[in-house]
Amino acid sequence: MQNLLSGLRIIEGSAFIAAPSGGMTLAQLGADVIRFDQIGGGIDYRRWPVTKEGRSLYWHSLNKGKRSIAVDFRQEAGRELLRDLITAQGENTGLFVTNFPARGWLADEELRARRNDLIFLNLVGDRHGGTALDYTVNSRVGLPFLTGDGETPVNNPFPAWDVIARQQIALGLLAAERHRRLTGEGQFIRLALADVALATMGHLGYLAEAEINQQSRPPIGNHVFGTFGHDFACRDGRRVMIVGVSPNQWKAIVSVTNSEQEIEKLEQAEELDFRNEGDRFAARDAIRLLFEPWFKARDFDEVCEQLDSAGVCWGPYQTIAELVQNDPDCSDDNPMFQRVEQPGIGEYLVPGQALEFSGFTREAVKPAPLLGEHTDEILHDILGLDSSAIGKLHDAGIVAGSNSDS
Amino acid sequence: MQNLLSGLRIIEGSAFIAAPSGGMTLAQLGADVIRFDQIGGGIDYRRWPVTKEGRSLYWHSLNKGKRSIAVDFRQEAGRELLRDLITAQGENTGLFVTNFPARGWLADEELRARRNDLIFLNLVGDRHGGTALDYTVNSRVGLPFLTGDGETPVNNPFPAWDVIARQQIALGLLAAERHRRLTGEGQFIRLALADVALATMGHLGYLAEAEINQQSRPPIGNHVFGTFGHDFACRDGRRVMIVGVSPNQWKAIVSVTNSEQEIEKLEQAEELDFRNEGDRFAARDAIRLLFEPWFKARDFDEVCEQLDSAGVCWGPYQTIAELVQNDPDCSDDNPMFQRVEQPGIGEYLVPGQALEFSGFTREAVKPAPLLGEHTDEILHDILGLDSSAIGKLHDAGIVAGSNSDS
Repeated sequence: MQNLLSGLRIIEGSAFIAAPSGGMTLAQLGADVIRFDQIGGGIDYRRWPVTKEGRSLYWHSLNKGKRSIAVDFRQEAGRELLRDLITAQGENTGLFVTNFPARGWLADEELRARRNDLIFLNLVGDRHGGTALDYTVNSRVGLPFLTGDGETPVNNPFPAWDVIARQQIALGLLAAERHRRLTGEGQFIRLALADVALATMGHLGYLAEAEINQQSRPPIGNHVFGTFGHDFACRDGRRVMIVGVSPNQWKAIVSVTNSEQEIEKLEQAEELDFRNEGDRFAARDAIRLLFEPWFKARDFDEVCEQLDSAGVCWGPYQTIAELVQNDPDCSDDNPMFQRVEQPGIGEYLVPGQALEFSGFTREAVKPAPLLGEHTDEILHDILGLDSSAIGKLHDAGIVAGSNSDS
Repeated sequence: MQNLLSGLRIIEGSAFIAAPSGGMTLAQLGADVIRFDQIGGGIDYRRWPVTKEGRSLYWHSLNKGKRSIAVDFRQEAGRELLRDLITAQGENTGLFVTNFPARGWLADEELRARRNDLIFLNLVGDRHGGTALDYTVNSRVGLPFLTGDGETPVNNPFPAWDVIARQQIALGLLAAERHRRLTGEGQFIRLALADVALATMGHLGYLAEAEINQQSRPPIGNHVFGTFGHDFACRDGRRVMIVGVSPNQWKAIVSVTNSEQEIEKLEQAEELDFRNEGDRFAARDAIRLLFEPWFKARDFDEVCEQLDSAGVCWGPYQTIAELVQNDPDCSDDNPMFQRVEQPGIGEYLVPGQALEFSGFTREAVKPAPLLGEHTDEILHDILGLDSSAIGKLHDAGIVAGSNSDS
């Protein structure tokens, strides 16, 4: 937590990765993010990975630092409460993000009739209103054919498009809030996951390469496109990733592996100039073979030490278990991380926001709420209901507190 | 272009992907983003992919919609000009983003002495000041061991961490600008690429899974973790990605493949309940084998048609060339895309911003500038230099116009 956005309130109705983590990003910058859930939890409340007790490490990781109100929004009275919450008046309120369909009780017209300057961000699958998930978008934009050896498509296990959309959500809300602060105008913002992927493929030049050069980029295994970079196995089997993008990075690799003469011979033989990174890419396989013996002759620890002292840009390959067990940057040595007690799960290492603001100290990283943990305080403080009215809502099963969370 | 951030000015000194595309994101939302470059271009000005004429499709894709000033900042007079530009007074100015080292002539103290409310975002490799690139960070966080079959690590060809950092940059600047507008306080913001990756691994539950469940997630090929999703080859060899996350998505797959009875048998044999996505994941291989013949018996076109009419969540596998040639959403049918004339390269399909704001129309997507294209207007309009002073700077080789761009 860094309380940069203190005072700003966002209402969130969400599932899966992009929308909830968009809200979490703003919560970790100090905003008051209130997520509403169907009593008992939504579609992703028990998503894998789960603990032995069935608690979702996924859901709790994506909803840190928010407040929770549990409502039965299959009932009209529940919907009415949530519309009131979304459109509550105030200079720093009236921001709503959802990946639920923006129709029926959550139609923009319906909400905007109550608050004309509402900022409503709706995440959708594709621009036609169709469903799309990270994995179906990723197959469509061609990257699985660039991954691995290219014989069969290899999926990305990491949902990159969801994570990129998450940041776009936070950015879109802040950009619209700035505009509203200056002009008073609200906004309906639509973001299609498929468009996030398509735009990114254009921004990184993949589309232009296919159109102008009339070629799809070939699969290049573990090489880095357009420069020199590859993984190398050490004597003990552990691996490192080496990249030589800048002239200094390249020189450091050549120097640490004592390859100056062989590299010069290769340049002459191939009529290339390895000061140009494109030429390094063109000769990537020969260069890789040339460096390989140096790594094969040394154990990982010695390789690391020598790479560091030569100023090589490199990273170890490690499993996630090794990362968690051994890497000091993935521990509370790194001020971005804290050990947090998550009710129902226990204490574990939890990250805050990677952005570090000089004007703010890093406060305690907050866990995810229990479902309905803040139902009563939200009904009272924001909607102005008294305890008798709140009690009736509980009795009618329209809202629930955290005693319903199990 | 959507002119949401009209009036806001950001100065950028950058290379590679994250920092320049952070600026581009804000430029495509209407901000005036001015990038400064060494006369003749920086380290990535000719990065691959390049056209036959050697123009970088990479650089031009990452710098769309900005203004360019070309300066020799090896000379003190050039540095002085840029410090003046970064710290120029005004309510909507004084935002600076760079991945150059924040020391020497670009030290925060140096700049803040001229403008105390400066918002200065510095992207670095890791929190210790070491270098790190997308590829060295990715090997470190463990994802290559989850990609493919897991026998050897498989790198991600797509620089996801750079793209995520890009959005963090835009977000960090806007969040800090909001705070400055409300309080008058500036900010030094540090963002380490390694921390972006580490935080994300925590936010998505990978770290908690390793710590609490004491297991690294195993490699699962093209399966989707925790639910059912896999690719299938059609009779003609083309492939589709199918995902059944929600109950309706799952039902649609079972229904279109006429697998109700076999699925029920499998549930009974394995004592699982496929209404729970975790149970679908547990039986993923058996389920995949069960669906496979349906795809194998049909050509791609028929498969697509039937999947669509059954409401299955799916995506085609296509190469980037196929995407560009055949997919209507990757064409100017999609209002996010426009055909843009990029001087020196020609006309091609260029994306704007995926966020679509109801209060703004999509204006022409702007190409990248020529190096130094706006040198004189920036010196005149922002730094108040007259044509005689500007002429002297040119004569002394301290600045250059776009005639130096080739």
